[in-house]
Amino acid sequence: MKLIIGNKNYSSWSLRGWLAVRQSGLHFEELTIPLYGEKWDQAKRETGEIAPSHGRVPVLWDGDAVVWDSLAILDYLADRVGRDRFWPKPDDARAMARSMVAEMHAGYQALRAECPMNIRRRVAEHSLSQEARADVVRILTLWAEARARFGHGGPFLFGTFCAADIFYAPVVSRFLTYGVRVPGFAEAYMQAVWEHDWMGAWIAAAEAEQWRLEQYEGPSAA
Amino acid sequence: MKLIIGNKNYSSWSLRGWLAVRQSGLHFEELTIPLYGEKWDQAKRETGEIAPSHGRVPVLWDGDAVVWDSLAILDYLADRVGRDRFWPKPDDARAMARSMVAEMHAGYQALRAECPMNIRRRVAEHSLSQEARADVVRILTLWAEARARFGHGGPFLFGTFCAADIFYAPVVSRFLTYGVRVPGFAEAYMQAVWEHDWMGAWIAAAEAEQWRLEQYEGPSAA
Repeated sequence: MKLIIGNKNYSSWSLRGWLAVRQSGLHFEELTIPLYGEKWDQAKRETGEIAPSHGRVPVLWDGDAVVWDSLAILDYLADRVGRDRFWPKPDDARAMARSMVAEMHAGYQALRAECPMNIRRRVAEHSLSQEARADVVRILTLWAEARARFGHGGPFLFGTFCAADIFYAPVVSRFLTYGVRVPGFAEAYMQAVWEHDWMGAWIAAAEAEQWRLEQYEGPSAA
Repeated sequence: MKLIIGNKNYSSWSLRGWLAVRQSGLHFEELTIPLYGEKWDQAKRETGEIAPSHGRVPVLWDGDAVVWDSLAILDYLADRVGRDRFWPKPDDARAMARSMVAEMHAGYQALRAECPMNIRRRVAEHSLSQEARADVVRILTLWAEARARFGHGGPFLFGTFCAADIFYAPVVSRFLTYGVRVPGFAEAYMQAVWEHDWMGAWIAAAEAEQWRLEQYEGPSAA
């Protein structure tokens, strides 16, 4: 099994696919193709290995199976190793987790555009549009509801680490990077995500990367 | 089980959720809330029944479980009735089907903006931006690959009617409405979708609706 990802510092969708593979417990190799680099352009042009995704990451190869979207990767792996490793067991909790993940998958365009993931960066003040602020409020509302209704078994959204945490992990990074003020319950949740072993490994690798993409940097923190 | 949907003529995501519930074989009631109507505004304001979705449709209620996104609804139902009713069995086919569905779920923004679903409408000529044309080409490429590799058991993308057909059904409607020229294999596929019993029922209901949303109408066909 092979996972193709972009730069760990910048590629939020790669982080989701990578956490999903870790969560599956299956053995995998990883192959990094730096975003917007030479191989990236080449991959987009060629009808080669990465073509099914038309140049997007992450891509999972599992024998003849090719999966080219992070949510598809997660559910493909859940098919392989059993749904319970990724999704809460009770119907009402799983209904909410699936909905939250789907909403993250297709939504929050303003927040994503204005606060691109950049694990290394720290911004003291970052002005957000009304749309991005609405995204933040919506996310905090969902986190609060999940924690209150289903979070009793542990520090994560549905207690133990699951698909919803995987999908919101890059949001945790964005909130930290861009100094988004959050209530205490969210701080505690974000800390639990940040201190998760796999996140720790990803963050360390992101910090060690030498690539720098200026379009995701901007002025440094005051 | 109750499914909340918007107007059948216009609401492409409702169509996906509704086809998923039909595909599950489970009994359900449907409740229509006309898009942008009085109840719609009210639903968006109130913290009532539709609130978890912040005013978006479709929403599935199943006892205490609330699912507010069409892809989440589909996989929640697959959890209930068994994956094989929604997804191809072989890993390589299911990998592609899951990826195509996820790509539809988050992508094709240009096509969706320029060609809103309008089942009743027929446009002889419709000029598309370069981005929307690229979306069309990408979709036709995926359809061609799915049909060629996995479509031998029937007229649908993966042979028998599955999650991928459910997710691309509104695209079939758009291609027909806006007169998008497609190769013969795609015409045959689109006809199979259009003649599917459930699509027939949805189309008849859409044609019988009296609501008219001017923003999705525009000049009539030449």
